[in-house]
This record gives sequence, structure tokens and C-alpha cells, in this order.
Amino acid sequence: MKIVVDAMGADKAPAVEVEGAVQAVDELGLNVILVGDEPRIREELKKYGESREKLSIVHAPETIGMHDPAAISVRRKRQSSIVVGLDLLKKGEGDAFVSAGNTGAVVCAATLSLRLLPGLERPGIAIAIPTLTGVSVIMDVGANITPKPIHMLQYGIMADAYSRYILHKTKPTIGLLNVGEEETKGTEFIKEAYTLLSESKLNFIGNIEGRDIYAGTADVILCDGFVGNVILKVSESVIDTLVQLIKREIKASVIATVGAVLASSAFNSLKKKMDYSEYGGAQLLGVDGRCIISHGSSTAKAIKNAIRVASEFVSEDVNRHIVEELESY
Amino acid sequence: MKIVVDAMGADKAPAVEVEGAVQAVDELGLNVILVGDEPRIREELKKYGESREKLSIVHAPETIGMHDPAAISVRRKRQSSIVVGLDLLKKGEGDAFVSAGNTGAVVCAATLSLRLLPGLERPGIAIAIPTLTGVSVIMDVGANITPKPIHMLQYGIMADAYSRYILHKTKPTIGLLNVGEEETKGTEFIKEAYTLLSESKLNFIGNIEGRDIYAGTADVILCDGFVGNVILKVSESVIDTLVQLIKREIKASVIATVGAVLASSAFNSLKKKMDYSEYGGAQLLGVDGRCIISHGSSTAKAIKNAIRVASEFVSEDVNRHIVEELESY
Repeated sequence: MKIVVDAMGADKAPAVEVEGAVQAVDELGLNVILVGDEPRIREELKKYGESREKLSIVHAPETIGMHDPAAISVRRKRQSSIVVGLDLLKKGEGDAFVSAGNTGAVVCAATLSLRLLPGLERPGIAIAIPTLTGVSVIMDVGANITPKPIHMLQYGIMADAYSRYILHKTKPTIGLLNVGEEETKGTEFIKEAYTLLSESKLNFIGNIEGRDIYAGTADVILCDGFVGNVILKVSESVIDTLVQLIKREIKASVIATVGAVLASSAFNSLKKKMDYSEYGGAQLLGVDGRCIISHGSSTAKAIKNAIRVASEFVSEDVNRHIVEELESY
Repeated sequence: MKIVVDAMGADKAPAVEVEGAVQAVDELGLNVILVGDEPRIREELKKYGESREKLSIVHAPETIGMHDPAAISVRRKRQSSIVVGLDLLKKGEGDAFVSAGNTGAVVCAATLSLRLLPGLERPGIAIAIPTLTGVSVIMDVGANITPKPIHMLQYGIMADAYSRYILHKTKPTIGLLNVGEEETKGTEFIKEAYTLLSESKLNFIGNIEGRDIYAGTADVILCDGFVGNVILKVSESVIDTLVQLIKREIKASVIATVGAVLASSAFNSLKKKMDYSEYGGAQLLGVDGRCIISHGSSTAKAIKNAIRVASEFVSEDVNRHIVEELESY
């Protein structure tokens, strides 16, 4: 098994990708191909001693930036790390792709290059989030901002497989995000999605509300990509704002500063629990291949975890389970 | 000026409404009419000594519950505190209405009873939220889950007036919530709203993202009622989850417990800053009257603040400013 890693995606590329890849090779025994600017990757690799048999490099001279237009860049930059990396999967030279780069470009390139699984119309992005009771999956968080009701059923089937085979839940509960719990609530789109989900074989528990997400009410939270994108960004923003406000308050008081130092073990433990990077990034589901999109601010540990989760998607053959489930409809 | 208060709306009704009304009369010198179950209101009032000239009661024997269907309840329960209270405004016996009850029912009853301001098609709910730099307004947070692009322009005009005349901002910046900053991002609905806002006289700063909301990037954040509802509920949920996780972590460590006690001044100060009730609840804008919807979990202080803000909407004549602005288009 070989995991292809885009070495040029993260804000701190290629340093974090190279370090994460080295950790994945050394600690997890995985084979990794780093794709990107070879001289820069080699330079980074020097930090980690002699060369490793399980770690190879494929040169890609171009880079698609975080703010480059996705579809145009993918068509024009055929030598970019994203396009070259996904081509390796297409040619059978790699089993999964990990990138911390431009999400839109990865979705676009993966859909063009790998194509979709049979029976699917649109890919979607699923992300695991920490909750009060454990971990849940939100899907879609931004691949498809104008889905049809049938896509929500397909997202439900894909996120269900993710929960079962990667997160090891036996009968994941599936909730549809809405503005109220009653079946009569929401837009026409939501009501139609509700009907399709009710008639499915999924363990559908009905509508859930924004407040239920982090309470862990459902193992899978289904929403359109616009709402999912807003949820993730607002959640990060609330936490960042709280931390900044706490810092300001603490600075204003000597006693509080002493207290904060003493309470820091609690904060650190909490921080670890809330750390998205522990969960291995966002999964692009629905493409005929395995594709993980990490946060632009990924650390080496986040990259290592993404590589680990990518290998689990391969060994658990999640895509086969998804296709079998889709065929049964 | 007389503020009509639904005494039966909050989770702890009528206790918090009665206490909040007494505070508004005693501390702010306002005239308040409490509407609801008269014997229960009188019983609560006994706690606050002899009767007050500025505080009166209008009996309403029925109550619309939090989970009652909005439109049906408003039509059937003509003797409910919401319907009776809004009728007082219609008859000119009150100048503003405050309720901590069923949001959908208040929106529905207010629209039917007070009608809309000339030139408007749909009401919207605006709410003031604390940010890193001060306070911003989000609109709509749930009155209209399927708005048209023109409604977003109208929401912009209304929230702009709220920011100017109640929050005293001189040239409020208006942002459109989207999945990216670029003009080309988002659904067709968002792109059309973007065009209308660009061509308006508003101080429109373009698209903003979920992470910009609490950073205070814009004074006004415009979004549809579905997204706005999710934002508010997710934000509350993230904070609640953090607090619960911190409590768990702290319990697990004696040193952390000591630290937390010492740091409590910082947390209390922070809590006050994040307290929505300081900002006087949510404003139902667009109806031909003043209508404030408080949180179901409102305290007496929250009700008092809502009454205060309601009186400011009257004295600043915000609706006249909105109508004049709408007429200029």
C-alpha cells in the first residue's frame, strides 16, 4: 500500500508534509510518496537523517495556491502537485491521496481524474468532529453547495460507511440538520431529503438542530455544503474568540494569571480533545479512490494522522462497502 | 410610551417577566403592561411590594407553548398572551411588544396583526452578538428560511438602521455571509443578493465567511434564516460544550480546581461579555410596530434589557428611518 502526499499544500509546506510523512513511515510502517518541488522536499528531508526505502519523491514543479480559482487552476496547472499526485492514483501507482491544499482544486481534480463511484452524482466532504459523547461526522462541509435531496441520501450512505468502518460504530444514528425537530420544518429541499432518508435502510433519527451537533445527538449530521462550511468556520471562530477573550481577561488580573497557570493542565487536555488533527482531516467521499483533505494549518502530526486514516480507508475498503450499499437501492 | 410584555413566554414565566417588568418600571421609569394569566401575574407581583402606577395587567387566559405549531396556534388561540398583546399595539394602547415565547408564533401573529412596513415583502429577525471588537448584528436568524435576493437587500437596510440608531454606529459595514470571499463564490441566490447589495447605498464590504462573524469583520452579517438559525444554535452549542468539557477536566485534577477558582474572575468577566441578554434580545424587523423576541431561557435582567431596547426603538423611531430608506430605492 502506498499513500501519495501532496507536499505543497499546507501553510507551512513542505516542512509539515515531509515531517508527517517521515513519522508515518517510521512510526506506522507505511509507504509514502511525496509529490511536489523535489529540491525543496530533499532539503527538508535532510533534517531526518539518511534516506528511507519506504519514502519516495515524485517531482511536480507547479503549485496551486489556496486562493487560486479551483477549476481553472486544475485545467491549466497539469504539473501541479495536486494534479500529478492524483494521476499517480489513477495510474495505480498509489492507493490514497492526502493534501492540505486548496480544497476546491482537490475536489475538482479528484472528480476529473478518479471519476465518481457508480451510482453517484456528486462527491461530498465528510469531517469527523469531537462531541460531548465522542466523535461524530458532518457531511457535506463544502464540496456541493446546491445539492439535490437525492444527494443527501447518498451522503447519508457514505457517512454511514465512514462511521462503521473507520470510526467502528455498529449502528450509526443519522440526523438531518434543520431549524427544528418537527417533520414539517424546513425548506422543500430539506423535506424531500427527510422523506428519502426516512424510507432508506439507514438508522435515520430525523431532524436535528444546530445545538445537537456538539452534544453528540447523532453519529452523522447531514447538511448541504454551504451550511456545513459555515458550521465549521463558525465553530473555529467561536473557540478562537473565546481563547482570545480569556487571554485578555487573564492579563488584566494577577490572581487570574496564577490561576490560569495552575488550570493549564485542564486546558491542555481539553485542547487535545478538541484537536481536529487527531481525527485525520476531511474525507472526500464519492470519488473512485481515497482522498483526504487536511486543514491548511495542518501540523506534521495532522499530516501523519491523515496518512494513517488514508491507509485505513484502503485496508477497510470503505468504497466497496459504499458501492454495495448504493447498489442495493 | 407603553411597553407591552408577554408574561407567559419564558421557560420561567411569569416569574422572570414580572421581575423584569418591575425592574424596568423602577429603574428605567418606563410604563409596562403585562399580558397573561392575571391571577398568576398578581401572585408574582406580591413579591415586589405595593402596586405601581406605571405597571398594569391585561388578562389573557390562553398560552401558546414553545412547541405549538405557530400559524395554527395564532389562528386558534385568539385569547393567548401573544395575540392579545399584539392586539394592544394594533389598537394603539401600547408602543412596543416584548415576548420570550414561541418565535414562530410571534412572527406570525405580528405579521398578521401589525402588517408589514410599506415596500417590504417579508419580516426578518436581527440579533446583536458580541464580537472581538464590540457588537455586530446578524440578520435573518430564522423568520424567513427561503428568502429571495431582494429580501437580503431589505434586511441590509433594516439591520443598517438598527446599527445606526440603536447601536450608534456611524457607517455600519455590511457583509454577506458566503463560503468564500470572492465575488464568484456561492449559490445563485447569494450572487444575486451580492449584486443588489453592491448597487445599494449601503456600506457593503462584500462576502464574509463564518470565521469573520465573531472576529467583528462586519457590523452587519446578512444570511438566510436557515443559516442564521444554525449559526446561533451552533455558537451556543460550542460554548456549552467547551464549558462542560472544561468542568470535566477540572474535576479530574486538584491543582486545576485551585487554579480554576483563582481564574474565576476572568471567566465571570468573560461570561458577562458573552451574555446575549445584555443586548436586549432579537428584533423582529419589517413589521409596522416594534417587536422584540427574547430567548426562552431569559432571566429577569434579559427581560428588563429587552424592555429598555424596545423603548429605544420607539424613541429613535427606527421604523421611520427604515421606511424613508426603502422609499429612496
